[in-house]
This record gives sequence, C-alpha cells and structure tokens, in this order.
Amino acid sequence: MEIELSKRQEKILEIVKAEGPITGESIAEKLNLTRATLRPDLAILTMAGLLEARPRVGYFYSGKTANQLMGEHVRNLYVRDYKSMPVVVQEDTSVYDAICSMFLEDVGSLYVIKKEGQLAGVISRKDLLQAAMGKQDLHTMPVGVVMTRMPNIITCQPDDTLFEAALSMMRHEVDSLPVVRPFADRPGEWEVIGRISKTTLVKVFVELGQP
Amino acid sequence: MEIELSKRQEKILEIVKAEGPITGESIAEKLNLTRATLRPDLAILTMAGLLEARPRVGYFYSGKTANQLMGEHVRNLYVRDYKSMPVVVQEDTSVYDAICSMFLEDVGSLYVIKKEGQLAGVISRKDLLQAAMGKQDLHTMPVGVVMTRMPNIITCQPDDTLFEAALSMMRHEVDSLPVVRPFADRPGEWEVIGRISKTTLVKVFVELGQP
Repeated sequence: MEIELSKRQEKILEIVKAEGPITGESIAEKLNLTRATLRPDLAILTMAGLLEARPRVGYFYSGKTANQLMGEHVRNLYVRDYKSMPVVVQEDTSVYDAICSMFLEDVGSLYVIKKEGQLAGVISRKDLLQAAMGKQDLHTMPVGVVMTRMPNIITCQPDDTLFEAALSMMRHEVDSLPVVRPFADRPGEWEVIGRISKTTLVKVFVELGQP
Repeated sequence: MEIELSKRQEKILEIVKAEGPITGESIAEKLNLTRATLRPDLAILTMAGLLEARPRVGYFYSGKTANQLMGEHVRNLYVRDYKSMPVVVQEDTSVYDAICSMFLEDVGSLYVIKKEGQLAGVISRKDLLQAAMGKQDLHTMPVGVVMTRMPNIITCQPDDTLFEAALSMMRHEVDSLPVVRPFADRPGEWEVIGRISKTTLVKVFVELGQP
C-alpha cells in the first residue's frame, strides 16, 4: 500500500533528499519550472508529512515515508473514542433468552456478568449455534454452561489503541472484545464498559476513507 | 496523517476558517500579537498548503487537509486484491450440513449455488441460528428454505473499491459480501469468485497501521 505520488512529486522528493534544506525557488530552478507551478506539489508533499518547511530555510526531507505517516495516524486512534454499548446478560440467563437478546439487540456477542457486575464470560453466535444443535432444553440451560469464561476472555481497555484491539481480534480469532476497567475495590475483577467489534473497525475504515 | 500544529497555529487556522479572506494585520489584532510575531506561523501554514495568501486580499483557508490524502489512499484499495476464498454449498444441502460446513471452515456466511454454479443465496450464522431454534428437523430442511435469495443479495465485484464494499456492508448490515462476476453466456446470472468480510477489513486496518 503506497501513496501514489506523481512523477514530478517523486522528483521533488529526490532533490530535497539530496540537497535539502533547499528553497522552493531552487527546486523550481532545477526542474526548469516556475515557483508557482510547483506550489501545489510542495503543499501536498508537506501536508503528507514527507517534506517539512521552515521559513527562510526552505524544505527538508522529514525522513518518514508516506506509509509510516499513515501507520502513525492509524495507531493513534483509541478504544475509548470508538467503543459502543455492551450488551450484557446475567450468568443465570437461559441460552434461549440469550439467543433472543442477541437477535433483539442485533449483536454478534453477549457479555455475561455476575450479580455484582463483574465480567464472567463471553458468548458468541457460534457458541449459541453449537448449543442450539445439542439435545438439551435451551430454556433451562444457563449461558454459564456455553460461555467462554474468565480468565480465558480476550479483553481491551479504554486507553488501548484500536490498532492493538484489531491485532488482538485477529490473533485470537474473536469477533468482538469487551472493553473493561478494573473495579477500584475488587482486585482481579473487571467491569464491562463497552465493546469493540469488527463492525467498529469497518466503521473506522469507512471514516478513514471519507472524501 | 495529522500535521502537528502549535496552539497558536491552530488558532490562526480557526480565525481564517471563520473570517477569511482576512489580512495578516487583522489576524494579529485578534490575537493581540504583532504582525512580525505571526509571520513565521503564517509562512508555515501557507507552505503547508493549509492557508493560501493572495496579495491585497489576505489569507484564506485552502480547504485541504492531511485527512483528504489519507482518504484518497484508503479509497484506492480494490476488492480484487483482498478477496478471500468463498465457501459454497449446493441449494439442496441440509441446514444441518450447512452448520457443519460453517464450523469446519470457520466462516460467518456461506454462499449457496445452483447446479450450474450460479449464485442462488447467502446464509449467515444468524439464519442458521434461527433455523436451529425452530421445531423442524435440520437434517431434512434444505438451506434454500432459510437463505437470503437472489435478487436480494448484496454483492460486490472485483473492480469495486474496498471502501465501497465496506460502505455497502454497513448500509445493508451484512457481515460479508460475495464477490461475483457475470457469466459470459448467461445474462443475469453470477459466478461467485470470492468473499469480502468484516474480517477482511480488520486485516486491512491492521495492515494500514503497520509500523
């Protein structure tokens, strides 16, 4: 994934890499163009962070590639700014009711909490489908039986980056991560305060691509 | 790609956005600074392409941002370069076997094809979960009964951008799109040649964020 530069922009980059700091006038001279013709190219290269400009000194090469700058931007988005509402159920909820909640709320995973609010487990559509295929009565089977339990749950925290959350989802092959924070007074227990799902990341992708 | 601006430069941008075209003197006045103090900031903002300066008119906002460049990059990725293998089943496959395929292949949706290979329908985990909740025998119920049928299927084509595919998934609230191409000899019928899923887009997000 390369940012597309024009032939002329590539040439400008080469000149600045070799001779920077260099004024816009000198670059124009080397290319046999007017300063005015070059202005948009220099603006784009500067905006993209490839060149830096210092008044009365001129342009110099930032040493960063376009992809590095793109990466920096993407790694600068935080879970706290993108998390959505979690859908939670109590541990003694029946698998049947959990399936209904999932359809009603139209989410791909439910977070299971204990009476005091701490995270106990995660249930995915896959878990529920597997349960529904079995012979047991879904009305009497509690979700506690089919959920993934703490401490095997992959979570994220508000100050994690979206990039870390995305990596974690890919690595652990899960469709969503509960966003948690520790209870102040109960060490080792976590409160669920949000969710980051693959849908969250598709939305961010669309946001990044906005014209 | 964010250009790092100083607090003062941000303020100048705000003023010019709100009141431009505006002279350097007027900006200086509003900020209670001398024109000379502002000169370097104005030079940087102009060189960066964020402001434009016209003699005897003043500064105005160029309307271009670093995010525009990011957007252009994101909108320049194509379905053909990111599609993964589709998992297909025949129309007369039982719901039970479809569920097994879904678990075996670990995908969120299956594409249903007719004998001659053309796309007939799409089945999601949700469709299968709904079927599994019913009273009917999953071994004898064909997937044709629970699938979303042509022409109600949201598809994409190899030359679409990933951005268009992502928008389409968000708009229609689906987890994946079959990538299709028309049969040369059978107008109105489509061959499934790949899939784009939310997972595809999470992978691309991770790729964009690579250091």
